[in-house]
Amino acid sequence: MEQTITIDALEAKVTAIFRRAGMNDVQSGALARVLTAGERDACKSHGIYRIEGALRTLKAGKVAGDAVPRLLPDDGGALVRVDAQGGFSNAAFELGLPVLVERARALGLAALVVNDGTHFTALWPEVEALTERGLAALVMCPSYATVAPAGGTTPLLGTNPFAFGWPRPDGAPYVFDFATSVAARGEIELHRRAGTPLPEGWAIGADGQPTTDPDAALAGAMLPFGGHKGSAIATMIELLAGVMIGDRTSPDVLAHLGSTALAPQHGELILALAPERFAAGRAGDPVARAEALFAAIEAQGARLPSQRRFAARAQHRAQGITLSASEAGQLDRFQKHGLDMIA
Amino acid sequence: MEQTITIDALEAKVTAIFRRAGMNDVQSGALARVLTAGERDACKSHGIYRIEGALRTLKAGKVAGDAVPRLLPDDGGALVRVDAQGGFSNAAFELGLPVLVERARALGLAALVVNDGTHFTALWPEVEALTERGLAALVMCPSYATVAPAGGTTPLLGTNPFAFGWPRPDGAPYVFDFATSVAARGEIELHRRAGTPLPEGWAIGADGQPTTDPDAALAGAMLPFGGHKGSAIATMIELLAGVMIGDRTSPDVLAHLGSTALAPQHGELILALAPERFAAGRAGDPVARAEALFAAIEAQGARLPSQRRFAARAQHRAQGITLSASEAGQLDRFQKHGLDMIA
Repeated sequence: MEQTITIDALEAKVTAIFRRAGMNDVQSGALARVLTAGERDACKSHGIYRIEGALRTLKAGKVAGDAVPRLLPDDGGALVRVDAQGGFSNAAFELGLPVLVERARALGLAALVVNDGTHFTALWPEVEALTERGLAALVMCPSYATVAPAGGTTPLLGTNPFAFGWPRPDGAPYVFDFATSVAARGEIELHRRAGTPLPEGWAIGADGQPTTDPDAALAGAMLPFGGHKGSAIATMIELLAGVMIGDRTSPDVLAHLGSTALAPQHGELILALAPERFAAGRAGDPVARAEALFAAIEAQGARLPSQRRFAARAQHRAQGITLSASEAGQLDRFQKHGLDMIA
Repeated sequence: MEQTITIDALEAKVTAIFRRAGMNDVQSGALARVLTAGERDACKSHGIYRIEGALRTLKAGKVAGDAVPRLLPDDGGALVRVDAQGGFSNAAFELGLPVLVERARALGLAALVVNDGTHFTALWPEVEALTERGLAALVMCPSYATVAPAGGTTPLLGTNPFAFGWPRPDGAPYVFDFATSVAARGEIELHRRAGTPLPEGWAIGADGQPTTDPDAALAGAMLPFGGHKGSAIATMIELLAGVMIGDRTSPDVLAHLGSTALAPQHGELILALAPERFAAGRAGDPVARAEALFAAIEAQGARLPSQRRFAARAQHRAQGITLSASEAGQLDRFQKHGLDMIA
């Protein structure tokens, strides 16, 4: 039956599941924090639903559950680097975060590179960790090669998420976090299961021709959002967050895993900017000016991104999170049987 | 009659026109270099066609033709700043460029902020100045408020260009530079003159409803590319390259000028990243890996951005630029009569 628990209790439960599966404290804690945050924000596709994928990847030996991320020594420049050591990127990000924040405040902007990490969660947790500390953030990473470049015929680019955040003084930040494909792969999967055609423009078949058939799309390629512009941004992400940081591109990821059923291992690029440094010596308070811009957007009936997520967060903080009977049961089974649950 | 001249001769002619109009050497030289580069690349909308707008803005007293940009002192951090002193941003960028390059190489990444400059040229000249020096670049700026946010009804955002470049060892770099609106304002103007309807999705009327009528669109608002995703990117540009750097947002620009017929004054944000720093200590040569990615894109029949521009550049370098009789005549009249040519 349905079960309502606090956010903290859910996080403890998810942590225990990962510990039971053999993951160490840094890995299980970091991953549990992010997946619980997804559930807290009613972002179900990045919530506890992802536990099974994490365990499957662990069981397949494609992620190191006992990895201890390592902050690499540097020369005090604008570039901070963490080696995830084959573990989840989330733990590596937590290790690099305080150094990135200090460096961005000191220099005006700085970058954190995470290498050799498994990343299958949303990017907004990274973004919000920075906005909470008064910084603007730009985050990107490759994924699996499932998207054809605009004008192309076969998968090459990933769904390559692009995320940005701006700190706001009261309450939730301005945050967007989206795939650079028209749709997420999961949305095509949902159409397949429902037996409904895809909207035009989402995908091409294996023959390179436009298709609205979910099966043909899954055998073919997804398309970038916004035509050649989105395709160019997805390519930029392959270059900056793959090639430039010496880590896998989306085609490399697919070649390495041979499947999109396991969580991908690749790098991640996180840029942090200190608004007070950029605004120094100039007229106008950037905090107040940003709020005026947001007010003007909302005054004409347009929405700021992530508002649904923030509303769910407020509600779940007040009332706890209600898990369905099936979800609660699965968590219990994961906790009891660990990796034996994974086929 | 038609006139074919070398790129250098055209640059000298355009420089002389700006000198004749009272601009100083730094301003006339920098602007002539960029507009000649536009003509050289057959990018007509950013070529000598723009001379008239520059002179109109000069005559209206909305740009300082005698400005001497000033590099602000800094603490050696990742943030370099040039005050354009009310002149054209192009001259300010030229002043800041060597410092930005040195800082990006030393720290891994760095930002150049240009404040109080008039910017009405493309962003690829800035991008290519950095890729020529082996750096990756990300450049953005606001413009006039002519674009409604996704889900909104009235102009608030600018066409806010977003540009990126990656250095390539042989020949031209990987470069994109696009408006974050579906179409450029000039394209709507062309439809108006031709009496042809706009494609669906370009614009809304003053009533906030979708329109394909160019007049209604010009009285209403353009739409961002890629729906809410492009709208979010355009908003990010207002925040980073307007609010954060203490300079005008697109609504501020329109309020200041009261017109889109004059070149806008606002700031510009240029990020430079040193690939060899980001790739250091990692396997794989980023130059070679990027080339492999580009080859894979082209192998499936997709185009890399800016290829038409580079082809025109090669052709014009070899054969000179052919100006129409009308273009050549106008250049002569600008050179002879200066600002008296402007109504």
